[in-house]
Amino acid sequence: MKAKMITHSQSEADKVAAAGFTEVYEPVKPYLDELDVFLQSQIGELEPEVRDHVRYVFGHSGKRLRPMLVAYSGWEGPAERAQEDLIKLGAVIELVHLATLVHDDILDEADTRHRQETAAKKFGPAAAVLIGDVLFSHALKLAADFQTTEVCRAVAQATARVCAGEIAQTYQRGEVNYSRDFYFRVIRLKTAELFEVACRLGAKTAGYPAKFSEAAGLFGRHLGSAYQIFDDLVDLYADESMIGKTLGTDLTKGKFTLPLLLLLEKLSPNEKNALLARFRAGDATVAAEITKRLYDFPVFEEVVSAFEGQLTHATEAVAPFAGLPPVDAMQKIASLVRAQLQGIG
Amino acid sequence: MKAKMITHSQSEADKVAAAGFTEVYEPVKPYLDELDVFLQSQIGELEPEVRDHVRYVFGHSGKRLRPMLVAYSGWEGPAERAQEDLIKLGAVIELVHLATLVHDDILDEADTRHRQETAAKKFGPAAAVLIGDVLFSHALKLAADFQTTEVCRAVAQATARVCAGEIAQTYQRGEVNYSRDFYFRVIRLKTAELFEVACRLGAKTAGYPAKFSEAAGLFGRHLGSAYQIFDDLVDLYADESMIGKTLGTDLTKGKFTLPLLLLLEKLSPNEKNALLARFRAGDATVAAEITKRLYDFPVFEEVVSAFEGQLTHATEAVAPFAGLPPVDAMQKIASLVRAQLQGIG
Repeated sequence: MKAKMITHSQSEADKVAAAGFTEVYEPVKPYLDELDVFLQSQIGELEPEVRDHVRYVFGHSGKRLRPMLVAYSGWEGPAERAQEDLIKLGAVIELVHLATLVHDDILDEADTRHRQETAAKKFGPAAAVLIGDVLFSHALKLAADFQTTEVCRAVAQATARVCAGEIAQTYQRGEVNYSRDFYFRVIRLKTAELFEVACRLGAKTAGYPAKFSEAAGLFGRHLGSAYQIFDDLVDLYADESMIGKTLGTDLTKGKFTLPLLLLLEKLSPNEKNALLARFRAGDATVAAEITKRLYDFPVFEEVVSAFEGQLTHATEAVAPFAGLPPVDAMQKIASLVRAQLQGIG
Repeated sequence: MKAKMITHSQSEADKVAAAGFTEVYEPVKPYLDELDVFLQSQIGELEPEVRDHVRYVFGHSGKRLRPMLVAYSGWEGPAERAQEDLIKLGAVIELVHLATLVHDDILDEADTRHRQETAAKKFGPAAAVLIGDVLFSHALKLAADFQTTEVCRAVAQATARVCAGEIAQTYQRGEVNYSRDFYFRVIRLKTAELFEVACRLGAKTAGYPAKFSEAAGLFGRHLGSAYQIFDDLVDLYADESMIGKTLGTDLTKGKFTLPLLLLLEKLSPNEKNALLARFRAGDATVAAEITKRLYDFPVFEEVVSAFEGQLTHATEAVAPFAGLPPVDAMQKIASLVRAQLQGIG
């Protein structure tokens, strides 16, 4: 079972690479290479005091999933400077993503990401707050290079939403008792929003018509939601002996995964309240017990169904534009994500 | 001695108000009232999860010094929607300023600001990271409402510089041994930059010619530098019995004030190194000793001279534009800041 190798501590990019995303990665490799050259060139644009910090963050930052979506959504776009603009746009979105990672690692008190020390660990949480701010503000500065203010507006808005999603999640810590609507709202804000903006602005920047860029945005939103659900599931499937630990960690951090939410919905009010009360009282054995109960209900099946539902929405969003160059690749991405889950099921 | 009432824990705005800034405040009061209405209206534009946090931050945030500079630099500007645009611009710059305050209070582990709990204390440092991010990203979203991308670019750039200044300072913690050039670079980045942008964009947004908006920016930069030097001095003069404590706090936090820097320059290398070695070893009595030595040299005189030099630069920057409506008021601001120092000397 391939997924045995995928543990909670591995990065999203590793998961993607490990499960056969090479097929999606290869066509955009030249784009990603240019993106990295561009990102490195930006270090020289920063004030000298922050260059080493930013260089460090750039050096340990995964496989550029969101820029890949920019590249695919703008694939062979008719705009005159499409490629050049898509690289800058990919950089803007990756910088925002890196900024949120740097800040998230402070929140989560995470020591490692991508098997390297986090900025919070290496430079201290105080410096990491500022490093995230520098990444974010440089993203917006680059966004201001586009001819219209639309890129600035969309990126700023997306960032506000990502943060709102994180706050919603943070605010709920200790309140492991929220609704399915709330869960989907949080993943849409904290994860799907940036996928959506990557796809919508990618298509638009490349010169495709507004109707397609809106559809591409919808594709991104649902792909992002599927991606987050997948993330929840991988954590569970990764290694059955680790489930208790993982769920325990999630519970402790107040990270509310879909499997957990669905399970709590299925328990009797009495059992649910008893479990939650024990959790709140700090009973460490509760995670193992919750884990055991997962197998008494069709929780996994429902999570898979939610995941597949999101991918279907993604696929349907761009289906009417099948004649446009990006659509084939976008559909392939959706299929690969879908196949990946079957690989670990 | 008026300054007896001004303690380290009081806010910049309080200092400003306390020392007779009413004369500058009154003419822009209608503007500031409209600004507050506008800021409050923005709460409804945010995701529901963050509204209470942002409302809290808005409720405890001083006297809007930077928006005042926006209003004065754009005073009676010829642009058609000058007032409306100046309010939005003031909001953008105030939001960036508030974002940096919220983040700084995490860094400094400050419990109170403006005699209220900081966001970091009230909501926890993790939430405060995100609240700062929301304020900043909303600022950039508003900046994108302007017709050109210039406001986005300038504000994003200024934010990156403010953060670089803070990082430069943070990075030096424990290294209380840097140069005058470095000190002036740090205050220019962390304080003067946002003053500069407020004045430059204020003049530009109101429709004044580019030459004046550049001059107004220069005015803002030097006024901001003077303001930071004044801040250092007030801390020292505020209450002589507190000097030891204040210097000790500054030393401990690695906050390098100009008086301290000038004193260290004057000591013999032996004495300086001995004092710094004792400080690094955690000797708590060193602050009192450094304080005592301040009176053996003309340190205060030199700080006052640096302060006045900055104000002179500010005044000279806009002097050639004496015919324009903003200039009288800007010169008055500079005089009042100058007079304020004489009041506590």
